[in-house]
Amino acid sequence: MTKVAILGGSGYTALELIKILLRHPHVEIAAVTSRQRDMPHLAELHPSLTGRIDLRCELFDVERLTTNGVQCVFSCLPHGASMVTVPALLQRGLRVIDLSADYRLRDPDLYAQWYGESHADRMHLAQAVYGLPELYGDAIATAQLVANPGCYPQTGILGLAPLAAGHCIEPRRLIIDSKSGVSGAGRTPKLTTHFPECNESVSAYQVGKHRHTPEIEQVLADVAGEPIEVIFTPHLIPMDRGIFSTIYAMPRRPLSEHELLEMYRSYYAHAPFVRVVEHLPATKDCAGTNFFDVTVRMVRDAIVVLACEDNLVRGASGVAVQNFNRMFGYDERTALL
Amino acid sequence: MTKVAILGGSGYTALELIKILLRHPHVEIAAVTSRQRDMPHLAELHPSLTGRIDLRCELFDVERLTTNGVQCVFSCLPHGASMVTVPALLQRGLRVIDLSADYRLRDPDLYAQWYGESHADRMHLAQAVYGLPELYGDAIATAQLVANPGCYPQTGILGLAPLAAGHCIEPRRLIIDSKSGVSGAGRTPKLTTHFPECNESVSAYQVGKHRHTPEIEQVLADVAGEPIEVIFTPHLIPMDRGIFSTIYAMPRRPLSEHELLEMYRSYYAHAPFVRVVEHLPATKDCAGTNFFDVTVRMVRDAIVVLACEDNLVRGASGVAVQNFNRMFGYDERTALL
Amino acid sequence: MTKVAILGGSGYTALELIKILLRHPHVEIAAVTSRQRDMPHLAELHPSLTGRIDLRCELFDVERLTTNGVQCVFSCLPHGASMVTVPALLQRGLRVIDLSADYRLRDPDLYAQWYGESHADRMHLAQAVYGLPELYGDAIATAQLVANPGCYPQTGILGLAPLAAGHCIEPRRLIIDSKSGVSGAGRTPKLTTHFPECNESVSAYQVGKHRHTPEIEQVLADVAGEPIEVIFTPHLIPMDRGIFSTIYAMPRRPLSEHELLEMYRSYYAHAPFVRVVEHLPATKDCAGTNFFDVTVRMVRDAIVVLACEDNLVRGASGVAVQNFNRMFGYDERTALL
Amino acid sequence: MTKVAILGGSGYTALELIKILLRHPHVEIAAVTSRQRDMPHLAELHPSLTGRIDLRCELFDVERLTTNGVQCVFSCLPHGASMVTVPALLQRGLRVIDLSADYRLRDPDLYAQWYGESHADRMHLAQAVYGLPELYGDAIATAQLVANPGCYPQTGILGLAPLAAGHCIEPRRLIIDSKSGVSGAGRTPKLTTHFPECNESVSAYQVGKHRHTPEIEQVLADVAGEPIEVIFTPHLIPMDRGIFSTIYAMPRRPLSEHELLEMYRSYYAHAPFVRVVEHLPATKDCAGTNFFDVTVRMVRDAIVVLACEDNLVRGASGVAVQNFNRMFGYDERTALL
Repeated sequence: MTKVAILGGSGYTALELIKILLRHPHVEIAAVTSRQRDMPHLAELHPSLTGRIDLRCELFDVERLTTNGVQCVFSCLPHGASMVTVPALLQRGLRVIDLSADYRLRDPDLYAQWYGESHADRMHLAQAVYGLPELYGDAIATAQLVANPGCYPQTGILGLAPLAAGHCIEPRRLIIDSKSGVSGAGRTPKLTTHFPECNESVSAYQVGKHRHTPEIEQVLADVAGEPIEVIFTPHLIPMDRGIFSTIYAMPRRPLSEHELLEMYRSYYAHAPFVRVVEHLPATKDCAGTNFFDVTVRMVRDAIVVLACEDNLVRGASGVAVQNFNRMFGYDERTALL
Repeated sequence: MTKVAILGGSGYTALELIKILLRHPHVEIAAVTSRQRDMPHLAELHPSLTGRIDLRCELFDVERLTTNGVQCVFSCLPHGASMVTVPALLQRGLRVIDLSADYRLRDPDLYAQWYGESHADRMHLAQAVYGLPELYGDAIATAQLVANPGCYPQTGILGLAPLAAGHCIEPRRLIIDSKSGVSGAGRTPKLTTHFPECNESVSAYQVGKHRHTPEIEQVLADVAGEPIEVIFTPHLIPMDRGIFSTIYAMPRRPLSEHELLEMYRSYYAHAPFVRVVEHLPATKDCAGTNFFDVTVRMVRDAIVVLACEDNLVRGASGVAVQNFNRMFGYDERTALL
Repeated sequence: MTKVAILGGSGYTALELIKILLRHPHVEIAAVTSRQRDMPHLAELHPSLTGRIDLRCELFDVERLTTNGVQCVFSCLPHGASMVTVPALLQRGLRVIDLSADYRLRDPDLYAQWYGESHADRMHLAQAVYGLPELYGDAIATAQLVANPGCYPQTGILGLAPLAAGHCIEPRRLIIDSKSGVSGAGRTPKLTTHFPECNESVSAYQVGKHRHTPEIEQVLADVAGEPIEVIFTPHLIPMDRGIFSTIYAMPRRPLSEHELLEMYRSYYAHAPFVRVVEHLPATKDCAGTNFFDVTVRMVRDAIVVLACEDNLVRGASGVAVQNFNRMFGYDERTALL
Repeated sequence: MTKVAILGGSGYTALELIKILLRHPHVEIAAVTSRQRDMPHLAELHPSLTGRIDLRCELFDVERLTTNGVQCVFSCLPHGASMVTVPALLQRGLRVIDLSADYRLRDPDLYAQWYGESHADRMHLAQAVYGLPELYGDAIATAQLVANPGCYPQTGILGLAPLAAGHCIEPRRLIIDSKSGVSGAGRTPKLTTHFPECNESVSAYQVGKHRHTPEIEQVLADVAGEPIEVIFTPHLIPMDRGIFSTIYAMPRRPLSEHELLEMYRSYYAHAPFVRVVEHLPATKDCAGTNFFDVTVRMVRDAIVVLACEDNLVRGASGVAVQNFNRMFGYDERTALL
């Protein structure tokens, strides 16, 4: 049994994480923190948890977490808040899975450029492991700090990794056209996510400026062994959950669809949550699961990758538990099937 | 040609009103006011108006409206704000259609009880005409101040008026179970109208406490000539627009469905926007229109009325224009078909 | 370990059932039958099952099921088909949970009247136990044939049972106004469930004629010990899943909200899947779960019960597994939390 | 006043066309044909037309249309059916606007290749004018036969035309990633458009195989004066209406966003329904209108065009009326604002 704590309990990723962990036979949720003053019961924050967990939020207190025997902390704090909170945890020897963006970009200057503030914890940044189990599984197993990947980046990275690893594609002008459900925008009400504004509508946002761009490029460059440049366009879709990414890449040599599918199957042969399918996938088929579904097509001389996932499970809290399982020696699939 | 002004241009009823008035051959929108400091162009507030109207918002200024030749003012201000703004307009001789709730309840004590503040303009309250053309058409024609009806109330009132007028139903325990699209909650972002909260969900709200209750009772009592008591339950439905009300009433004497339908047809024989249908209506069939669709069924010994409308057109801005047309001598249907 | 078979694998209830049973530590799905000639793999029928179960559909063959050691059969066949298939299973000593309506109404004449054909298996009809664990839990445990309850009826029955049991309400003119997601209409494409027809729309259907009416009345009469008459109005709501029922009843004696809530809490004290809440529930909070959420309000002199559930889990396949757990001696909650 | 007839009245484009034409001050809808045997009233086919038009469907009869004085026929027949029906109309001297795909591709072999049957009316194919008013406005004015453009093609063509006309972009590997509401799939129920299948889901379909591909390439080649190759990926989005296309093109020479926007503004200076905007457009802002909204961004060295329209109005019936207005000498905007 492993005792865990969750920092920042009021958002969607925390809620999803709690629901998954409640199914985990080897986990006890010892604490959930919140900055809300009245320390609400979790069922007040999230009515869907009524009768499923009996816990009130508490203020963040490292001492108390350590005394309580917490071994692993999931940080669901927003970026900026994580990097000033995580150091104290690491210093006490706790292991941390950070769901924010704070430890994803290795280069603190890149962080400053895209997130608009200088990085407050360069020391630990250097030791953080990017939490994509299909690529960094071994390093995750022994990591003290795991930077849980972004929802969009996973679709771009997992969607292109077999091609990048095989040096099959031109490394520039990789186009990732992503369509996301609205829960990806978080739980804070805004005009853009107000129901009558975004329902029955599609629009693109942060075209060419989305912060997930350098994250995708960093990891794909790791895989490819050469610099990668992506053109990333996120869109808001009137549905709760799910990300669908349509990815366009130019092959360096002629490839058939059959060869491509084989390449993907081989690359993901040992990845229990990647489903290489022949049919065209739909976000609904992986909704609420930790599966990443992908297929490939040749259109004229271009490779078109069609990939999807649930943004809250596979894209955030599910993969966090997958990482947790690897870190603590549990079967990778525990609580996720 | 009649010059009009609109107060409070940033919400959904103002937007809908502008779209309808742009189709009106005898109306010129002379001014739209807003409390926003930067006086945005209407297309900035509402991108859908791009290229359709070239007007910036202005601060409210009675003098200026009068000088500009404005004859009619539509107030889309929230309740509370209307009753402190409208008096100045009436004193200058302008005619006013108030889309807020401020002039709907004749009894200022009832207003205080349901709206939580005392009424600031009792003088004009006494002269306001309730803007439901099917019931008060003649009075509207000559009114200086029209209290445009609430969206829910119209479905309850128009749905029960033929029965109330014919003294066919028990006046107590009238049950109005209403289902509304989310635009009815206005344009200010809130957690309850945040897309991932209200999408894929149904819930009731303000059960037994909704402010439209006394409005329905007041008007139905007018029609029935006796006190009326309703049990009103509003629900939030994951769609943009439309209200569907299912109404349960107990007949005082046995009535067949055929008799009931004839009663409705006869009552609304001269109402161009009321469609008494035999099939079960759907909100989609009147979406974006000024139609009110209604049918009646007998279930065991109860009368079940099924009624629907578009909450923004028929429920607010469309009926406001219908009232305007009556007030200024235009064909009631102008700009509404 | 219990071997089970599922009859009729192509619909939504079968899909949901498979997903739940895949999480059940003591169940092996030995067979899924289908009348489709090409005997598709389950992942072809339901792409979401890709990689989760490796089974092809087979034709229904009692002999084979028995030989394979199947002990329990879930019938997801449509009504009419179940009652001609189930007898052979029972004669072989198999236990059956029938998700169709065929064994729910005790009176075969009532069946004939509402379902338009005479009942083909009166013998077993007499021994069937209505599968609502909160009311018939002991009988379910020893039953050979369980008639799994309808989705709508559960909301009406569980919503009113505490009041009926306490003889607190008038037994006639009970109004059940239900709002259902579209998956309740099944998986066969029809114009009424074609996306552009039912999206962004609300409508009522089968007003006063829905087949779940006598089912609700039969069970509530059991509970109340007197005949019950309901006025039931189902509505179609543009969402995938969930049923919300707003129920209106007239009390025989004055009751406060506090007394009512206590009555519900006491009645359901030992029901792990009934959550008596104080806030107004929303279908989203029980979506995808086996929970039934309910609260009560007094509005004027009427009791208003607000109840909701997931129509596919609690309303069909989840409660079927809850029944299965009781029948085979497993913890009632297994695979359902 | 011009008398018109509509062939094939049961689908969404016919419904939308009727609604627009009912607002046209110079049009009389003389006949609507249907192959349904019982010749339903239009309000039976489309309940939303109740009380708006009093017309029953009739069987197609050229003689009768001519005798009735019909001057223009809108064909809403499916492809394949149009090309065997239209010739008789043209021979009688009627003018035809064909909303099917039958007369869009100039090359009958290309038609055979993409539509799977040989073209039945090569004679008139040669004289058909492609009905995109912004490109072929003068030819449309005098055409006897107008091939109304496809919904997707308009977004690709109008989105790229200024760049193609200016020879600013590489003519190959133009990527058009389109997202469409479900009404684009027509009114015939199918599993893919069954609400619980496509709601809360995104998927791509006919990747690299969609029939609108050659239509886009033909028209853009006209504009560019050189062959064009597009990679077109359509996606199904859970909303009723709207198409959003994200278009990726590589510039032949460096261009700033400012230059690009100026190029678009200049190109569409006289197009009343094209709105070149600076903000990122959303389908909701042009929903139900004949507007085409477009903006341009530079991302790294690629041009990203973001374009949207209402698929039923601008994408079909609205542009058909725009064409009609040009053909019969009415102001292009009549009935469309």
